[in-house]
Amino acid sequence: MPKDGSPDAVTAPSQRTRVRRIPGRGHYDRATVHAILDAGLVCHVGYAIDGQPYVTPTGYWREGDRVYWHGSSASRMLRQQKQGIPVCFTVTHLDGIVFARSGFHHSMNYRSVMALGKAATVEGDAAKLAALEAFTERVAPGRWREIRPPSKQELKATTILHMDLAEASAKIRTGDPVDDEPDYALPCWAGVLPLRVMAGTPQADAKLRAGIAAPGYLKRFTLG
Amino acid sequence: MPKDGSPDAVTAPSQRTRVRRIPGRGHYDRATVHAILDAGLVCHVGYAIDGQPYVTPTGYWREGDRVYWHGSSASRMLRQQKQGIPVCFTVTHLDGIVFARSGFHHSMNYRSVMALGKAATVEGDAAKLAALEAFTERVAPGRWREIRPPSKQELKATTILHMDLAEASAKIRTGDPVDDEPDYALPCWAGVLPLRVMAGTPQADAKLRAGIAAPGYLKRFTLG
Repeated sequence: MPKDGSPDAVTAPSQRTRVRRIPGRGHYDRATVHAILDAGLVCHVGYAIDGQPYVTPTGYWREGDRVYWHGSSASRMLRQQKQGIPVCFTVTHLDGIVFARSGFHHSMNYRSVMALGKAATVEGDAAKLAALEAFTERVAPGRWREIRPPSKQELKATTILHMDLAEASAKIRTGDPVDDEPDYALPCWAGVLPLRVMAGTPQADAKLRAGIAAPGYLKRFTLG
Repeated sequence: MPKDGSPDAVTAPSQRTRVRRIPGRGHYDRATVHAILDAGLVCHVGYAIDGQPYVTPTGYWREGDRVYWHGSSASRMLRQQKQGIPVCFTVTHLDGIVFARSGFHHSMNYRSVMALGKAATVEGDAAKLAALEAFTERVAPGRWREIRPPSKQELKATTILHMDLAEASAKIRTGDPVDDEPDYALPCWAGVLPLRVMAGTPQADAKLRAGIAAPGYLKRFTLG
């Protein structure tokens, strides 16, 4: 994968987003960052009020070099964030637990993206509708035309934020444990317990009208 | 479940942790907060440097009314947090996607905990060893006695933080979509697509000594 400053980089890593502790785990190219973002549904957005950080989980989606998230216009989180304060947008996929032969080398396999920036609101009913359609279609292709679209009042009650991926980095750990050489002789199991998010059987609403089958996009849904 | 100020509450909800948007989703009792924390492995910790928030995923565990997380003593995150700056500790489990008949009422089922406070370091080799043993045994009961324990040098290279759950709240959404009354007549599938984290088949390290079987705790591992 291309690294720092390549033509494919979302950005050259800034002082703030460069992965320092284990530099080999850092990636800054667009394809890697986008792939991690597209595999997720819930981000954690950090913002501070009066010096106190808050970290709020929320649904998100990506289009091009932008991430979007949304919620009620009454939400404290969104009312703060739309003022253009610095935020941190983080997405994490836990891929496995790494069992080493020493306590010290236990680890986790994961893929994460951290993006710093300031959020701005999506303005105008047409743009907001298009953004909500993109989110819906990303989760469930074909669903937008099946459901009742948002009313003018509902659009007003919905705040949509977006942020450019101008200062973003990915961090990835994969593969086997890395033990100290003498420890490989220990009679201890070592390896990876893989973890992944699985979708179960769709559970129909108790009030679902008779004769409506679960759509195909539910069966095809994957995450991670 | 007991709410605000009950004898079982971790704390009365503060102005900062009270769930305001949809108060019925807020819970403040110890049993609910603990159960959500005990179902997870990775938290997102928020902290700010020079006004810029950072949100870092990391492994955690709980003992009593405290959460713990740890990492390299060289980590920027931990070096900042151990100075006693305000942090936000958030754990989220995504339990399902809620498909409503209108775009507006689409939602997610989830369980989350947000705790505010200041972190402090676990000091002393004995206390650090005990904390690391607790973390290991929580993930894999019985493993601590199978592995090589941390050396003095490794303990020095490991920073362990803890934070009291003095200001914590849980937020939970479960169940079916809640649609506007007229929309129940629409010929649209509605319900929940459940999601959960599943463990796969343990993958032995390429360098694993012959004749070492995967331990039972790998097969019994659950999350969420």
